[in-house]
Amino acid sequence: MTDCIFCKIVRGEIPCAKLYEDDRVISFLDINPINPGHALVLPKNHYATLFEAPPEELHACIAVARQVARAIHRGMGADGLNLIQNNYRAAGQLIDHVHFHLIPRSVGDGFFTSWPAKAYPKGELEKVLERVKKEL
Amino acid sequence: MTDCIFCKIVRGEIPCAKLYEDDRVISFLDINPINPGHALVLPKNHYATLFEAPPEELHACIAVARQVARAIHRGMGADGLNLIQNNYRAAGQLIDHVHFHLIPRSVGDGFFTSWPAKAYPKGELEKVLERVKKEL
Repeated sequence: MTDCIFCKIVRGEIPCAKLYEDDRVISFLDINPINPGHALVLPKNHYATLFEAPPEELHACIAVARQVARAIHRGMGADGLNLIQNNYRAAGQLIDHVHFHLIPRSVGDGFFTSWPAKAYPKGELEKVLERVKKEL
Repeated sequence: MTDCIFCKIVRGEIPCAKLYEDDRVISFLDINPINPGHALVLPKNHYATLFEAPPEELHACIAVARQVARAIHRGMGADGLNLIQNNYRAAGQLIDHVHFHLIPRSVGDGFFTSWPAKAYPKGELEKVLERVKKEL
């Protein structure tokens, strides 16, 4: 896509701090990291979200993500790591080219500490199960 | 693993609200969801984190995650969806059997709204790039 910032990086029109590249996938450091070492992994081809990307492109991405995640974890001496992939603005997606965040974590770094889970009201889980299964 | 709650679900020793199952992968609703429709996708074989799971198991998971994510998005009428995979306690992992969260989102639902990104101090990005590349 002409105006996509990630497509411009893929084409070499914008520089990046490259960690990995093959025919299909590229990985580079996020220049505005949550924590130092925060990287992105994405298919070179342009797909807006997880839903548009073909499975074979996602296969390639997740294999690279695993490899780069391990290097980040070791290289940064991290205590943990989040793989996060956001779809649409409501989920925090800012660039409309599917990408995986790899975010190294240290104990008490303050990111993403809230996990506001709550049980379903009685009878709701069964209804939700049916709603989702109907679309599968 | 004998004491792993996800292995017990895989073996049918603990019931689950199942969305999908094949030889390799299982997906079910999280009973303590961030939002209704929040599901998990995991390999049936036990691996603690992303780092231990072989690429072929992750391939199977990401293909199922894409399919289930689409069904959740449609079935719940969501505005967005986060795929989140946490490794180690510092990153919020609570069950030591690698799993992907699929979390449907609606505008203003209040989850995961903070993204405290900041630029690297001058010269730091290059140092971090070297530290990570050394481990690749």
